Amino acid sequence: MAQTSIILRVELDHNKISFGDVAAAISKAGGDITSIDVIRPGKESSVRDLTVDVAESAETSVVESLKAYDGIKVINVSDRTFLVHLGGKISVQPNLPIKNRDDLSRVYTPGVARVCTAIHENPDKAYSLTIKRNTVAVVSDGTAVLGLGDIGPHAAAPVMEGKAMLFKQLAGVDAFPICLDTKDTEEIIRTIKAMSPIFGGINLEDISSPRCFEIERRLTEELDIPVFHDDQHGTAVVLLAGLLNALKVVGKRIENVRVVVNGIGAAGVSICKMLLAAGVTRLVPVDKHGAIVRGGNYEYPMWQWLAEQPQVEGTEGSLKEVLRGADVFIGVSRGGLLSAEDVCTMNEDRIVFALANPEPEIDPDEAQPHVRVLATGRSDYPNQINNVLCFPGIFRGALDCRARCINEPMKLAAARAIASVVTSAELNEHYIIPSIFNEQVVTKVRHAIIEAAILTGVARRIPPDFR
Amino acid sequence: MAQTSIILRVELDHNKISFGDVAAAISKAGGDITSIDVIRPGKESSVRDLTVDVAESAETSVVESLKAYDGIKVINVSDRTFLVHLGGKISVQPNLPIKNRDDLSRVYTPGVARVCTAIHENPDKAYSLTIKRNTVAVVSDGTAVLGLGDIGPHAAAPVMEGKAMLFKQLAGVDAFPICLDTKDTEEIIRTIKAMSPIFGGINLEDISSPRCFEIERRLTEELDIPVFHDDQHGTAVVLLAGLLNALKVVGKRIENVRVVVNGIGAAGVSICKMLLAAGVTRLVPVDKHGAIVRGGNYEYPMWQWLAEQPQVEGTEGSLKEVLRGADVFIGVSRGGLLSAEDVCTMNEDRIVFALANPEPEIDPDEAQPHVRVLATGRSDYPNQINNVLCFPGIFRGALDCRARCINEPMKLAAARAIASVVTSAELNEHYIIPSIFNEQVVTKVRHAIIEAAILTGVARRIPPDFR
Repeated sequence: MAQTSIILRVELDHNKISFGDVAAAISKAGGDITSIDVIRPGKESSVRDLTVDVAESAETSVVESLKAYDGIKVINVSDRTFLVHLGGKISVQPNLPIKNRDDLSRVYTPGVARVCTAIHENPDKAYSLTIKRNTVAVVSDGTAVLGLGDIGPHAAAPVMEGKAMLFKQLAGVDAFPICLDTKDTEEIIRTIKAMSPIFGGINLEDISSPRCFEIERRLTEELDIPVFHDDQHGTAVVLLAGLLNALKVVGKRIENVRVVVNGIGAAGVSICKMLLAAGVTRLVPVDKHGAIVRGGNYEYPMWQWLAEQPQVEGTEGSLKEVLRGADVFIGVSRGGLLSAEDVCTMNEDRIVFALANPEPEIDPDEAQPHVRVLATGRSDYPNQINNVLCFPGIFRGALDCRARCINEPMKLAAARAIASVVTSAELNEHYIIPSIFNEQVVTKVRHAIIEAAILTGVARRIPPDFR
Repeated sequence: MAQTSIILRVELDHNKISFGDVAAAISKAGGDITSIDVIRPGKESSVRDLTVDVAESAETSVVESLKAYDGIKVINVSDRTFLVHLGGKISVQPNLPIKNRDDLSRVYTPGVARVCTAIHENPDKAYSLTIKRNTVAVVSDGTAVLGLGDIGPHAAAPVMEGKAMLFKQLAGVDAFPICLDTKDTEEIIRTIKAMSPIFGGINLEDISSPRCFEIERRLTEELDIPVFHDDQHGTAVVLLAGLLNALKVVGKRIENVRVVVNGIGAAGVSICKMLLAAGVTRLVPVDKHGAIVRGGNYEYPMWQWLAEQPQVEGTEGSLKEVLRGADVFIGVSRGGLLSAEDVCTMNEDRIVFALANPEPEIDPDEAQPHVRVLATGRSDYPNQINNVLCFPGIFRGALDCRARCINEPMKLAAARAIASVVTSAELNEHYIIPSIFNEQVVTKVRHAIIEAAILTGVARRIPPDFR
């Protein structure tokens, strides 16, 4: 039962009601007062903020129960999620104070002119003398935000800010949210290119498919800093990490398993590519119209690309039909597509990654008895496939070695690094993926990314710990 | 004599030289060791960082003198200006830590979805639930950086970062530098519009004239957040503040003085406009070809606009010719244009604002004996016209009242507010402008901006202290 905190601002008429009555009323309705702040004291009446822990389902009844009393006026109800968002979640801080005129003349005019000139003479110095070496833009056009769809750039901002927080806390990366007021592919590309000089990397986020493919491809070609669409590759990297460990749990080899991937959008395409790169030999991509088969003809270039891969199977069929005899099901589609019965047509030691959010492709409680390893995108079940495990370490590594791009070998290395955080002693059906708070994750992903970048020749700097 | 600090990284061969010898050598060459950090200790040799205070002119001789000794190897010389720039001057910080899964679910998925939805339903909530209400973009295309000219977006970054530091320290505004890799007017406009949703204001910076006029005009028309080209208006506001006080010192009224403005580029145009708005009745704008006169025909729209103003004089002439009989000279042009003889043709109680940087229109030492009030753009003379006095308070006020724009009455109010910080008891020839570290500046400018925004109907919010 999910708990939440709400803050009730109430005005009490002391002639009509005592605070004891209020506390009793809240308690009776299922709330638990955890703190009280007096906002305006007074003899006749007072205003207080009451922080109340309550089951999410009981939130309304707590508020309603108070309204029934004479002498209590509910001025405002804020829940903690909204409160932490007030004024935004990140800020820009100077790295040093400007205490006097001498300091000012160093960080600003006239002294700064010498620094500008040095960069003008050698643009590479932007990496040492500006924020470029540690700064990433988190860019969205707001067209595919979480499960909410096209909610626009303003409404997308809280996700981008949250991402910037995670970048800093987990990997020390300075990330700044940029929300674009355009959905035009060419204009998005142009805008990101135009504003790129201050940034050392671009994290694309929540841009709808199929435009996201073109945007990422073009920016990767036309910019010399790494560009990474997290919805595609972040999910794919973490999923592959989980799959590698799940296969260890059930004792199967990646070369031998038959894998069904349902939902061939932004994430699905990237997942299929990574699976092939990781050695999957029997792949069945499925979208709304059924299996995408080898030799077929498809409208979307990415589907067509899949149809040309030798590892993709040639037999047509609906999701339920092709699922029969699969070892692994990966869903990045929508909720409630499969029943326990469907899952039972898979081979023994079933691996099911049902990542649709908030409702997985199959109800986890229904699936659990029939599968060996179950993973979802949700935090309230074990084995959460969460791309927070991926993007901080990937960019930490890419920035530290000044990678030109983030290529397939780097992503594969990141997936293996995430998988390696779970030791063989710890590994079991309910623990295939480390916690995002496990500090080893960023360290290992960073190391793997730098190593792969150096090996594939895209690193422009060898970090001190690799020399 | 300007002092600087340098940091010398030296390797000493202990068999050949003692640290005492090194200290003596530095001292003899004019340096003063203020701190020593041992980087690598050792019996045979050691590496140390020596922080040395030295006159700027003696920097090279200190380094050279050390090289002459056997047993000292100078590994590196860094001066403090470069050192404070290492890694950039600002960073992005989370406003609260993510300590556990519960925190994560509030600032990121799944909780953040409710916040996104709230903004989607009412976009105005972006001002309360995202960083928009306190965040300004400092945007440059790098075409007119300080006195350095078109040095490009990478080399412009240190100025924009310095500005972001000042925004935060002086006014609590979160500012982020955006350096544009395009010089095309339309593309600059398009890019800034596209990336505007996360920002509550746009500070344009170091964009060359005449493109800057069109860019600012169009953005002001097409965006609903304030747009302010600091090079134009910041200088004009601070200059007017200084002029108002200078006129008090000499006991003249603004309606009666004859003002020559030399250099009708970005700053000069804005200065002329403000002077007219402030009540100047006899204005002589001058550019390379001489005075811009009433009734003349000019190529640039802004010059033409000036030629149509009744307060602009009709007599042609070179700078030196029209300067005769002026009460006020304002230069935003280039160094070494005027001699003491030229200045002496002005009316008594001369006011000279020679703002060209780094070399003023007339050598301040040469001008000083002949003028009543002298102001420059330099920090090593009294009365520095520094737009750091202006932009932090202007944006603080504009953000606090969610002004749609920053209009002429707001700028005029800001100039008067800056002037008012200097009390009549303090006011004298050498103190017409407050220090940028005077905390009253931002407070008074903010107040004036909000008041003027409310009066002119461009405020969309009444701050609590104005209710």
